[in-house]
Amino acid sequence: MKETTIVEKERVETESATLIEGLPGLGMIGKIATEYLVKQLGARRIAELYSPHFAYYVLVNKQGSIRLLRSVLHYWKNEKGRNDLIMLTGDSQAQTIEGQYEVAGAILDFAQAKNVKLVVTIGGFRKEVEDEPQILVSATNPVILHKALEAGAKGSPSGNPIVGTAGLLVGLAKLRKMDAICLLVETSGYLSDPRAAKAVLNLLGKMLELDVDLLGLDKEILKSERIEERMKRIEEQRKISAEKRRKMEEEKVSYIS
Amino acid sequence: MKETTIVEKERVETESATLIEGLPGLGMIGKIATEYLVKQLGARRIAELYSPHFAYYVLVNKQGSIRLLRSVLHYWKNEKGRNDLIMLTGDSQAQTIEGQYEVAGAILDFAQAKNVKLVVTIGGFRKEVEDEPQILVSATNPVILHKALEAGAKGSPSGNPIVGTAGLLVGLAKLRKMDAICLLVETSGYLSDPRAAKAVLNLLGKMLELDVDLLGLDKEILKSERIEERMKRIEEQRKISAEKRRKMEEEKVSYIS
Amino acid sequence: MKETTIVEKERVETESATLIEGLPGLGMIGKIATEYLVKQLGARRIAELYSPHFAYYVLVNKQGSIRLLRSVLHYWKNEKGRNDLIMLTGDSQAQTIEGQYEVAGAILDFAQAKNVKLVVTIGGFRKEVEDEPQILVSATNPVILHKALEAGAKGSPSGNPIVGTAGLLVGLAKLRKMDAICLLVETSGYLSDPRAAKAVLNLLGKMLELDVDLLGLDKEILKSERIEERMKRIEEQRKISAEKRRKMEEEKVSYIS
Amino acid sequence: MKETTIVEKERVETESATLIEGLPGLGMIGKIATEYLVKQLGARRIAELYSPHFAYYVLVNKQGSIRLLRSVLHYWKNEKGRNDLIMLTGDSQAQTIEGQYEVAGAILDFAQAKNVKLVVTIGGFRKEVEDEPQILVSATNPVILHKALEAGAKGSPSGNPIVGTAGLLVGLAKLRKMDAICLLVETSGYLSDPRAAKAVLNLLGKMLELDVDLLGLDKEILKSERIEERMKRIEEQRKISAEKRRKMEEEKVSYIS
Repeated sequence: MKETTIVEKERVETESATLIEGLPGLGMIGKIATEYLVKQLGARRIAELYSPHFAYYVLVNKQGSIRLLRSVLHYWKNEKGRNDLIMLTGDSQAQTIEGQYEVAGAILDFAQAKNVKLVVTIGGFRKEVEDEPQILVSATNPVILHKALEAGAKGSPSGNPIVGTAGLLVGLAKLRKMDAICLLVETSGYLSDPRAAKAVLNLLGKMLELDVDLLGLDKEILKSERIEERMKRIEEQRKISAEKRRKMEEEKVSYIS
Repeated sequence: MKETTIVEKERVETESATLIEGLPGLGMIGKIATEYLVKQLGARRIAELYSPHFAYYVLVNKQGSIRLLRSVLHYWKNEKGRNDLIMLTGDSQAQTIEGQYEVAGAILDFAQAKNVKLVVTIGGFRKEVEDEPQILVSATNPVILHKALEAGAKGSPSGNPIVGTAGLLVGLAKLRKMDAICLLVETSGYLSDPRAAKAVLNLLGKMLELDVDLLGLDKEILKSERIEERMKRIEEQRKISAEKRRKMEEEKVSYIS
Repeated sequence: MKETTIVEKERVETESATLIEGLPGLGMIGKIATEYLVKQLGARRIAELYSPHFAYYVLVNKQGSIRLLRSVLHYWKNEKGRNDLIMLTGDSQAQTIEGQYEVAGAILDFAQAKNVKLVVTIGGFRKEVEDEPQILVSATNPVILHKALEAGAKGSPSGNPIVGTAGLLVGLAKLRKMDAICLLVETSGYLSDPRAAKAVLNLLGKMLELDVDLLGLDKEILKSERIEERMKRIEEQRKISAEKRRKMEEEKVSYIS
Repeated sequence: MKETTIVEKERVETESATLIEGLPGLGMIGKIATEYLVKQLGARRIAELYSPHFAYYVLVNKQGSIRLLRSVLHYWKNEKGRNDLIMLTGDSQAQTIEGQYEVAGAILDFAQAKNVKLVVTIGGFRKEVEDEPQILVSATNPVILHKALEAGAKGSPSGNPIVGTAGLLVGLAKLRKMDAICLLVETSGYLSDPRAAKAVLNLLGKMLELDVDLLGLDKEILKSERIEERMKRIEEQRKISAEKRRKMEEEKVSYIS
């Protein structure tokens, strides 16, 4: 394989669609959100994306079946006559600079062939979060930006680089005169962060007038909070021990000198 | 040279063939097994694969002759009317991500031109092995998988990434709707592991109904066991010395403080 | 995106033009100088250059707008009938060897299509500078070189490699039989160096008979000098502390032994 | 520039030629030998090779002129009716694996267009050399190999990888059914080694029946021997100091404990 390739499983025609991208990244927010959306909407898998710029290993699933690293594209027909959804998630991002650009370009080629009018990308933004994580938005034009701000997002700080597919898709969409928006959710980012995923889905629901039940994420949030607490305790314990050790060393040194 | 290139030495036509891949990797299992099979069957060298993605050095042989790094393809006509064999082994794997995908793609192009119906790849799986090494199997579809399980293999644990050509060939074969299977033999992996190679050939013999005498590998196994034992003794000695040194340090420290 | 691409915003025709390149580099001299020139001349933005060899992130500006990394090309019509100017600056240089060559080639393609007769590149040369920074010049031919020497530049020391776009543009221009010159300004290089930028603009003004007011740079120079002084004081303080610490350690050691 | 490119300065036609390659490498042997040969024969510069796989900087010469990294090809008409010579040397080798293969391929394309019948590559082989450095030879076929052995070379040890252009040119020549030979001269390799260059030119003179005066290299040899001696003395001094320091440390430690 020499080029990024999208294999269509089911040929769908759309008059107007929104593309939502959620690949693995900080806190796995985009991936968790997109996968949840796919499940809740009962979206159909329509295509798979393969690339020689992904890592060169394959994955084994429970049935002993093998597959290449890939992205998957799901389609949901919006019966209310508004934009259909195409949702992209996957195993990983491209491993080289040139690969990142090539993969993002291939996604946009597909999006344009499916009449995508708006590209939404989801990522994480590292920050110690106290209460509700805020969502930082940036976009290809002020109209879309305004829509996200109205729905509760906050303007992204300027000078802030957005790394990887979530950023490149929006940057390349602009060159093609496509509307696009990037939503970065605040996250401590060490672990899977379903709370951040819920926050961004909540915002997306308002922006795109989707009616999606988000309660299913609460169990995940509870689980991740427990893990977080346990890790905090371990970390505190570690700090105390380190402090003790440091003091003992000091005493030893002063004893010698 | 700008692309991976396969140079045919002898043009063979096959109606139906199985491709067996065994490139260098953990424990050199695939390479040992494939080379032994080629020798025992008296297979003919039909092609060589060269790639600008291999390392950029050449090898010198005993007669002072020089050659590029390469893979070699051997052909064995199955007189019993079952699948012919095409066996691929070589010096090394591609050195870059994109190279790995390109080389695997070139191998499959060749395989398809030769009517290959099944691709078998051989690799190692690092594990401390007590008795007989087990063989972990994963495949493009349940039918082939079942055949290997029946012959004595065990299902590969899920989530397990298979790195390099052994994995990519199977993953890419699936995209092309070719049947393929990956056999990973347990190995401690530090040394050449002819015992693991014998185990996989034994399994392959059953699966493909081949009649190959494996006794020739026993001498290699004996040799490698001796090396292994010697290395174990060295390692134990090293541990004992390290332990002694540690104790002496401790005593010195407690003496000071 | 698979290739470096120049997107024209406004189609201009020139009979004869000079290209001035000032990308980020040591002391940001080329970027500061080119941006100042663009502003003073009121030059029009005519094109943007994008490349899959730039880093794979996007930038967010104050209005929450996103954009890819890029270079920008400005055009200034020279009403005095002499060479028009095309000025190139941007966010960054290409990240790989092959990318550097490809981007430089794309810039020269554009330059040739616009009848560029002379390419001028600006960079920095690390040196502790006391008074006025000197400008080191090298060129594709003695005639252009002489012109720069007459305007006050000094010959570049031989054996000196010029790294990145400032060097490659001139080297590749020579292959295409285009005249080109590289101006390296001495700079301590740690910070933005507007003083060096002013020096090179002064020289360029003489060489190209431009009438540009450089007083606007003085405020920047003052600011950078203050920062420099503050950093010097911090560095001196740091050295004194380090020296003290070293002495204390010595005394401790001699006390033990 | 997107591909390795050879720019012809003078179009020569040859009926039969030998290509001698001597790029920078261990001990600079190939470069010294080839440049000396070019000078002694008064060979004409006929072409230059440029590549986007060379490092991305340019060089400045004494006259303030700039140029890209490159290889140069010289031509010498053999008036005795034997093979003409084409000699290649240059600034550096390609920086990536794929670049190494591409550059070597471009050189062979040129060689074939000029009816080159034999490719000779020169490199170094790291070894502590006492008296005369030996020359290790490997080749694409036994006939050429024999010719070099007769002229005084020694067979190259098997298993020995030959890295870079000197190896790849011979390996790729073999694929094209061109005769080729690689001469590796023993060298300590830290410095320029004109003695090794003289040895290989002496051998080449015999093999190719060239009549070249090698006395001009003796001054270089004398100079390099002096440098070597000085460095040996510095190294010895360094060892003695290190030993002293080690002893003092030991004494201090035993004093504490």
